[in-house]
Amino acid sequence: MSTSEVTVIGLGTLGAALAAALIRTGHRVTVWNRTPAKADALVAQGAARADTVAEAVAASPLLIVCVFDTAAVRELIGPYGSALSGKAVVNLTTGSPEEARSLAEWAAARGISYLDGAVMAVPEAVGTPDAFVLYSGSREVFDAHRRSLDSLGASHFLGTDAGVAEFHDLGLLSAGYATMTGFLHAAALVGTAGVTARDFLPLATSWLTGVVAFLADLAREVDSGDYAGGASSVAINQVAVGNIVRASRAAGIAPDVLLPLKELLDTGAADGNGSDSFASLVELLRR
Amino acid sequence: MSTSEVTVIGLGTLGAALAAALIRTGHRVTVWNRTPAKADALVAQGAARADTVAEAVAASPLLIVCVFDTAAVRELIGPYGSALSGKAVVNLTTGSPEEARSLAEWAAARGISYLDGAVMAVPEAVGTPDAFVLYSGSREVFDAHRRSLDSLGASHFLGTDAGVAEFHDLGLLSAGYATMTGFLHAAALVGTAGVTARDFLPLATSWLTGVVAFLADLAREVDSGDYAGGASSVAINQVAVGNIVRASRAAGIAPDVLLPLKELLDTGAADGNGSDSFASLVELLRR
Repeated sequence: MSTSEVTVIGLGTLGAALAAALIRTGHRVTVWNRTPAKADALVAQGAARADTVAEAVAASPLLIVCVFDTAAVRELIGPYGSALSGKAVVNLTTGSPEEARSLAEWAAARGISYLDGAVMAVPEAVGTPDAFVLYSGSREVFDAHRRSLDSLGASHFLGTDAGVAEFHDLGLLSAGYATMTGFLHAAALVGTAGVTARDFLPLATSWLTGVVAFLADLAREVDSGDYAGGASSVAINQVAVGNIVRASRAAGIAPDVLLPLKELLDTGAADGNGSDSFASLVELLRR
Repeated sequence: MSTSEVTVIGLGTLGAALAAALIRTGHRVTVWNRTPAKADALVAQGAARADTVAEAVAASPLLIVCVFDTAAVRELIGPYGSALSGKAVVNLTTGSPEEARSLAEWAAARGISYLDGAVMAVPEAVGTPDAFVLYSGSREVFDAHRRSLDSLGASHFLGTDAGVAEFHDLGLLSAGYATMTGFLHAAALVGTAGVTARDFLPLATSWLTGVVAFLADLAREVDSGDYAGGASSVAINQVAVGNIVRASRAAGIAPDVLLPLKELLDTGAADGNGSDSFASLVELLRR
């Protein structure tokens, strides 16, 4: 009874980009959006328009949902539990790990195959090699619809716990924010000596590329819980971070973004773990 | 009267690595250390041992100083102002930008050519392509001794303000710390879903490599002060960071390392700059 291969529900900037990528790669796509006009451009590209959510649900064996938040997901597909039974739902709406897990439970109770996902790309990059999409939940949905999912970006299946993709999303965003914030602080600091961010950029890029490569060492220590090795101890880093904080203040730059690290190092040292490696700070985050 | 090309003063782990790299690349090297035994291995490799600082100063036209701190630099070479006149001093001791500038003034008043430097490498990497060394101060010293300096690592001359190399050092360290701290937080967070840091690493590396490439955009905005462009507004990031903080707490992970960023975003939004781009936060650091 399905008239198309994929239905996309939610045509905000991201949802529309997902639908367009599916159309470009030759899929028969049905689209639905609360404000119907948002579907016009996609219909012009060949998508079928569903006039109701019920029609959208009926149209395809695979539903991709990308709406404002998890509450909107529940509101939209909640009433269609039995219509969705036997179908696959891929939820690319941003939500918390708990929300993903709870939707997976709701789906499982209704015979719906649920795959949660997080799009790690700006909408313009969807469908290019720069985009990657993290999935967790139903391995069967991931395998069965792999070709369709791959048209959105590089697909990564991370586990059958539906919350795992969102955890990765949060972790990656969090690490990315840290890097960007650190760069802004560094640019502000060198700026006080008349150095432009543009002039600082090549060295910063080269240095941070080395730091990113070094994360493999940190990862090994985090997993093993063995913080005895390594030349870079909590005590040594405590001195270095103290110097940066002091120099920032002296230069008129707020050291705020470094203060939580300083506090972690101070705590580690005060706890008697000054000779442990930098990676040991992860224990303090878990407290 | 010089009997060697380079004198290295201070043979801690880093100083000894510097001297060894110079010896390996065929330099005639004189070494001095307060504890003479630290020179033994280098003497075995072909270095000449100076018994006194006066001998060390007299031995070469170029002095590389790498000691505990700036106070130690002053104490060691301070009494030799006239003996150093006409010579070049390259100070690779970690210090603040102000300390570098003040040593440069001291040297200029005595006819000493002063180059300040910062070694961006662990001692084991000195002399390999992985090491880079930042210099600022006397361009003449940098040019005249370029071959010797290049034997320590990739050499970067950053300006005639002697403090600029230290500013770069602090900025790079600060950005690197931010990235490492962000990774620890992310690893702790995904760890609560049973994901090992090792399993998280490939995605994190790929993602952060993209973030590092994106810093070019941030740099352009920081320099121009034009924060109007960009899809990623303060308001959007405020929501995203709020989500990460909330999800971290829910997972039992301290969100502390993200809180200064959250506060910057909250302040930016409260100041009425919610539609400005992420890079606009640099203005708040300069307050």
